[in-house]
This record gives sequence, structure tokens and C-alpha cells, in this order.
Amino acid sequence: MPDAPATAPRATFASLGERGLIRRFRAALPARPDVLVGAGDDCAVVAWSDAEDLVLKSDPVMEGHHFLPGTDLRRVGRKALGRVLSDFASMGAEPRWALVDLVAPAETPAEAADALYEGIGALAREHGVAVVGGDTSRGDALELHVFCAGAVPHGAAMLRSLARPGDSLWVTGSLGRSFESGRHLDFPPRLREGAWLRERGRRACIDLSDGLASELWHLARESGVRLVLDPAAVPLSETCAAMPDPIAHALGDGEDFELLFTVPPDDAGFADAFRLAFPGTRCTRIGTVGETLAGGLVLCGPGPGARELPQGGFDHFETATTTGESER
Amino acid sequence: MPDAPATAPRATFASLGERGLIRRFRAALPARPDVLVGAGDDCAVVAWSDAEDLVLKSDPVMEGHHFLPGTDLRRVGRKALGRVLSDFASMGAEPRWALVDLVAPAETPAEAADALYEGIGALAREHGVAVVGGDTSRGDALELHVFCAGAVPHGAAMLRSLARPGDSLWVTGSLGRSFESGRHLDFPPRLREGAWLRERGRRACIDLSDGLASELWHLARESGVRLVLDPAAVPLSETCAAMPDPIAHALGDGEDFELLFTVPPDDAGFADAFRLAFPGTRCTRIGTVGETLAGGLVLCGPGPGARELPQGGFDHFETATTTGESER
Repeated sequence: MPDAPATAPRATFASLGERGLIRRFRAALPARPDVLVGAGDDCAVVAWSDAEDLVLKSDPVMEGHHFLPGTDLRRVGRKALGRVLSDFASMGAEPRWALVDLVAPAETPAEAADALYEGIGALAREHGVAVVGGDTSRGDALELHVFCAGAVPHGAAMLRSLARPGDSLWVTGSLGRSFESGRHLDFPPRLREGAWLRERGRRACIDLSDGLASELWHLARESGVRLVLDPAAVPLSETCAAMPDPIAHALGDGEDFELLFTVPPDDAGFADAFRLAFPGTRCTRIGTVGETLAGGLVLCGPGPGARELPQGGFDHFETATTTGESER
Repeated sequence: MPDAPATAPRATFASLGERGLIRRFRAALPARPDVLVGAGDDCAVVAWSDAEDLVLKSDPVMEGHHFLPGTDLRRVGRKALGRVLSDFASMGAEPRWALVDLVAPAETPAEAADALYEGIGALAREHGVAVVGGDTSRGDALELHVFCAGAVPHGAAMLRSLARPGDSLWVTGSLGRSFESGRHLDFPPRLREGAWLRERGRRACIDLSDGLASELWHLARESGVRLVLDPAAVPLSETCAAMPDPIAHALGDGEDFELLFTVPPDDAGFADAFRLAFPGTRCTRIGTVGETLAGGLVLCGPGPGARELPQGGFDHFETATTTGESER
């Protein structure tokens, strides 16, 4: 009997992954001449006035995916706003106004909403953000979609595309096992650090939501450079350091919400200045920016034995379907 | 045997309803002095520059609620953006930049996203809106959360609170059975009409998403006035006029996405001017604004036999649980 005719496997959300879907649409999305940074960076940036650009970002937090059922809802509310604020931090931008779309089963007790808004409100007040609206609708599981608008001085936003040969690569905080330690709920968005970096001189910056390996690749691709990571230098969280293969977790776990950024070679005093400004925030040099390279590349080195770093970041669609890992 | 001790019924999202939840939080939300209009109107408005205020709005579209499974996804995408643009229309504002949070099952074919973005993109291009980002995540049913930012001349936004005694009440288009006729998917957001009304002189305006009765009550409450509706004057859609009790549908069905607004008594030439500017858009006088009245009131009149209009609008949580009506 002849073989059945071959059919190409049908592309799905799972097979394309979140980034595949974004790539699929990025070029076809309706544009405007005032859009300075569109889909593909941490936030969108549009021209508004001579003094300031408008910065826009939305992020979801889904039950069973970004938090487990039974989690204290104040911490869930805090995370929902915190994820967006972390994106603002990576641009060196100031978040100002937020909208919250809440999805919940009809039988959800009103106290659940109280707790969510308490968590959102506490973090919003801490950073001077007003909650100016949103919507509530019925769904099978709890979800929050937080949108935030804010500002950055005109033309000053830090971008993924600004890494230059000769820069060094740095990261705030310590990485890995954020989901297990609870830090993925309680992390402090690095807004002050981000604004300080931007004021010291525009540079490449990205926040670590998907895992260091994945974010290094974003930086390399968007800047068109070779990055060389020194894996021994990667700062490990306490929970991570206790694991059998800590560097794998630090590279792949995601949800650290720290900043990965570059420092230009002429800024010799950077480390001391950062320590003075933020004595409570660890800041570690983890690699260098090599030469310009179309398409980008990340090497796990240093030295002649360096090999290409597997991307291994967390993808919101790919993880569960291709590896069977537990959701987060 | 004694009765079991009485316990107060526990408040849930269903028992409070969408508006009850909003009332619960409105006062406690974090604020900023630059917020001109916060939660509770069609859009939020914040001060940005001397020339323009920034306008912000988000709206969800949920499968099984705002559209049925099997609906052409281009129309679903169009509706998702259209709902938000209709809110901008009601303020007389110009939408400029949109973000789309998409939730979908992992096995969703990539063509579904193509169709959604085609629908969003076509309407966005028609109104000069750029899609500048968003997020994609996994969930049980299809959802779109569209966020939009735009502008209105400083201090000129039309609000629910601007109805004044002596004004007349008007509505664009014709109402009722929008879900059955398919108009809830294909409606044209009244952006040009809204901008024209705002330029002619600031006034009260609201878009008809929840049903005329419900929106009349919003207007009455937020303005603190008595409204008198002439039910015989309400313009009925063709699908609605064929029903046994058409006025009940026109008052309660919702999802018309037309504009309900006031005209001041000194604007005698209004009807002719509107007809000249928008020959394709019906515009009907349906009532009057009576005297100032704390708390607001809507009468179904006219004449001495007028009675209080039941609110009967559509509430996203209350409908299915309290009346057993089919979802929309």
C-alpha cells in the first residue's frame, strides 16, 4: 500500500511559540510615523512632546501559569503590576497610569478582588502610579491584564538594540529558582536603577522575564552583536545555589525581573558609582560584547573553548507542549 | 430543633456585578494630581501637555461572552478594537496607539491569529491607529484585551457628567438586537461623529455598550439630573422592529456601540448641521434633561404618566447568574 500523502504539520500557537507569533505579525502591524519603538522591545515608545516620549506596555498574569491556585492574591496583584513596571525599568522610563482588566469566575468572592487591588495598590503607591480604570469580566480562571502608560525623556529610552562592541555585560540581583523561592511574586521592580542607568548614559537594557539565556539572545539579535557570557560570573540566588546544576537554573528559569544591561568601555567608575547609589542592589559583570555580527550570537565562554549558548529560555506556549514541564 | 444560625450571603463577583465591583474600588485606587478623569467614565483622561490630554482605555472580548465559538475571527478582531474605539468616540478623542493581549489555547492554529490581526489591522488602518505591541499567552478560551492610548484637546473631553437641565437627549444610529443581526461585530465606531460633537461644543456623551436603559442611568447619575426618555422616539434597528416587544430590546439588549449625547438648548441648528456633516448616520432626539437631582433619575415618559425606567441593562457578571439568559 502506498504511504498516505505527506501533509505539512499545521502551525499552531504552541509550535510557533510566543516569539514566533510576534515575528509573524511584526512587519504587518499598522504603523504611524510617531512610533519610535514598536512591538519587539520591552515597551513601545511613541513621540509626544519635545520633552518626553510616551511609553506603553501591557502584560498578563494567568492562574496556573504565572501563579498557582491558592497563592495569596495580594502577592498576585503585586506581581501583575510589577511585571509591567519591570519593563518600564528596562527602558529607564517612569510609569504613571495603569489600567487593570480582571477576568474571574462568577462565584469568586468579592474579597478576592479586595486582595488583588490591595496588592496592586500598594506597589502602585510605592512608585507613584495611579490606577485609572480597567474592566471586569467572567472567565474560567483568574487573570489580570495590566496596561501601563508613562514617560521617558525624548529619545533617551534604553533599548535592546543598543549593545556595542567593547561594552561589558552586567546584571542586577541574583538569578534562578524565582518561582520556587517566591521571588517571582515579591520582586522589587528595578525602576530606580533603570532611571539611574539611563541618566548615566543611554545603553542597551532588557529585563529578565524569560530567563538569562533567552534574554541574552534577544539582546544579541536586536543589537546584531556577538555576546560572550562568563558562566562562572553569573550571580546565583540562594535557592538556586543549593541545586545540583545551579547555572542551568540561573540561565533558564526565568521570572527573575532583574536588569541585564551594557556598560560602555569608557565608564571605568561604573561599578563604584552603582554601589554608592544602590548599596542594597547587587550588580555583577557577567560578560562582554564582542564584534558586530548580523543575526547575533551568544557564546558561553570565556576563552577558546567557548560554545554557542543554548537559548533554553522559557516560552509561554512552547514549554508545556514540547517539554512537559510544569506551568508557571 | 433550632434553626441553623443565619449567615449573611457572601458577596461574589456575580452578586456585586461589574459596576458594584467598580464602585467598591473607585475611591481606594491610587491617584495622581494629573488624573483628570479616572475609573468610571468611558475612558481615563490625564493631563500631559498644554495642548492635549492623554486618553487611556482597555476593553476585553471573551469567547462565549462577546462572541460565539465559530465566529469569523476577522470580525472578532475588528470588534475587539472597535469596542475601545467606540469609547474614544464618546469622549470626542482620537485613538492613536493600541496594544493587544491575546489569550488562546495552545492548539489554536496560527491562521486564527492571522485572522484576528487582519480584523484588528483593517479597522486600525481605517482610523490611523498603530498596533505597537502586546502579549500572547495560553488559556482555555480565546480572549483579546485591547488597550488604546490617544489624545483629546486639553480640557475638551466629553464626559458622562456634563448633562445640564434644558439640554435635549440624542442618539446616533438605531438600536436593538445587535447580537442577532451581527452588528455587534461589524459596527462602525462613531469616531468622526464624536470628534465633530466635541468641536461643536463640549457636552455629555456616552457610548451604548450596555444597553440604552443602563447608559441613561449612568448619564443621570454622573450628571446628577433627571432624564425624561420618550420611548416612542427611540430609533429601532430593522431586526429589532420585527420583534414582538421591540422597545424592550432597544432599551436592554446592549452592544449597539452608538453615541448617546446631549444638545444644549441654544443649539437650534444642531439637527440640520449633523445631517449635513453625516448624511449616512441617523441621529434622533429621544428625550430631555430635566432638573438637577442628586443621585439622578430616569423617567420613561413623556407626560404626567411617566414612570421610573427600569435599569435593565446588560451586566457582565449578573446576567447569566441571575436571569439565566444566554451569554454574550
